[in-house]
Amino acid sequence: MKIEGRNSVYEALKSDDITVNSLMVEKGMSNSIVALARSKGVKVSFVDKSVLDKASIEGKHQGYVADVTDFNYCQLEDILEGNPTPFVVILDNLSDPHNFGSIIRACECAGVDGIIIGRNRQVAVTDTVVRTSAGAVAHMKIARVTNINNAIKQLQSSGVWVYALDMDGQEITSANLTGSIALVVGSEGDGISAYTKQCCDGVVSLKLKGKVNSLNASVACGIAVYEVIRQRG
Amino acid sequence: MKIEGRNSVYEALKSDDITVNSLMVEKGMSNSIVALARSKGVKVSFVDKSVLDKASIEGKHQGYVADVTDFNYCQLEDILEGNPTPFVVILDNLSDPHNFGSIIRACECAGVDGIIIGRNRQVAVTDTVVRTSAGAVAHMKIARVTNINNAIKQLQSSGVWVYALDMDGQEITSANLTGSIALVVGSEGDGISAYTKQCCDGVVSLKLKGKVNSLNASVACGIAVYEVIRQRG
Repeated sequence: MKIEGRNSVYEALKSDDITVNSLMVEKGMSNSIVALARSKGVKVSFVDKSVLDKASIEGKHQGYVADVTDFNYCQLEDILEGNPTPFVVILDNLSDPHNFGSIIRACECAGVDGIIIGRNRQVAVTDTVVRTSAGAVAHMKIARVTNINNAIKQLQSSGVWVYALDMDGQEITSANLTGSIALVVGSEGDGISAYTKQCCDGVVSLKLKGKVNSLNASVACGIAVYEVIRQRG
Repeated sequence: MKIEGRNSVYEALKSDDITVNSLMVEKGMSNSIVALARSKGVKVSFVDKSVLDKASIEGKHQGYVADVTDFNYCQLEDILEGNPTPFVVILDNLSDPHNFGSIIRACECAGVDGIIIGRNRQVAVTDTVVRTSAGAVAHMKIARVTNINNAIKQLQSSGVWVYALDMDGQEITSANLTGSIALVVGSEGDGISAYTKQCCDGVVSLKLKGKVNSLNASVACGIAVYEVIRQRG
């Protein structure tokens, strides 16, 4: 979806429900909107007025046309509500939209109750994510929170056991993952951040028997999620 | 890697060890090489002589420059040799190189002994596959066979139980997958072909609890492979 005009673009950038995928700005402009977009990791391109005129639908772009996804995020409470033994997946700064889409797909198949993502440094539900999820995004509760460490603490105080999926933990098949569970999956490059890992109740790992031992984030998440499903029976 | 010249390109197209990723042919040429390339699913583009002159390294292109990957495939016997309880993955007409690379990655982590692919209608080990595998391809035995149904029969006569991973089978966690096992993974769109499925000793399925229930081929393969690893202990 495209939105245009100074105010509309500014509000979209500030909104928690709208994801700005990219922003076209007229050449020569440099101001708070550009700065805000950049601080949110939005790709900004400077183009000629004629390009904006062509991209504009209403003809009122004022130098700004943004490509946005209007995804309806839920609250963390919505995921837990009415669910005696919730199964939640938390993503820690995942950056690849294909991985995010693929994770949503796997979680939907496994019957995961909801996914929690951070607001910053984490790819939001963009058009690429929607497409890669093969439609699964429409059936998955996704909460976007300001701070995932606080979300972890909130889950714990609601009786949810939170496990980090990382390299140096207990083998996942020998851990007890029945009951109320949240699984934290780290970013492609850096894994789970140190403090987030400290916040967790434990660390679980997949058995690695190879030489390269580099699992794709979405494949690792799929394997772990299905191990939880197996244990929950 | 680039190769050029009528004979070199022709030999590469006929070879089992070299994968032709794409072929540039001088405009106006249409002959057995183009037909052979097309029959093998190689992308052929017709370009001006000047483009070929530029792409040519030796200056002897004769109207043909091909981009190839020189991957060292093994024989099916190499996978089984000296392996009392082999664990093999068979891919049935997988077409997406990213999925193939991701499957190689997951299989390497899980300690799968080898992967069998068909010669036709299956993406070969291209540069994209190598890259997506994150280096795992260098540590994985991959056999390319003319007919995967015959390969299945050969495995069975060697005492390997062959299971199709598909939608309508026994739940994988309740099947006995210890011992010598081969797992057949189908293509992204069509799944496993009917006759191939008939050749298998059984069908195993992942539990699907969602509404969309569409698992990516590489994620599904990763989950299944790790379930086999769990059972084998």
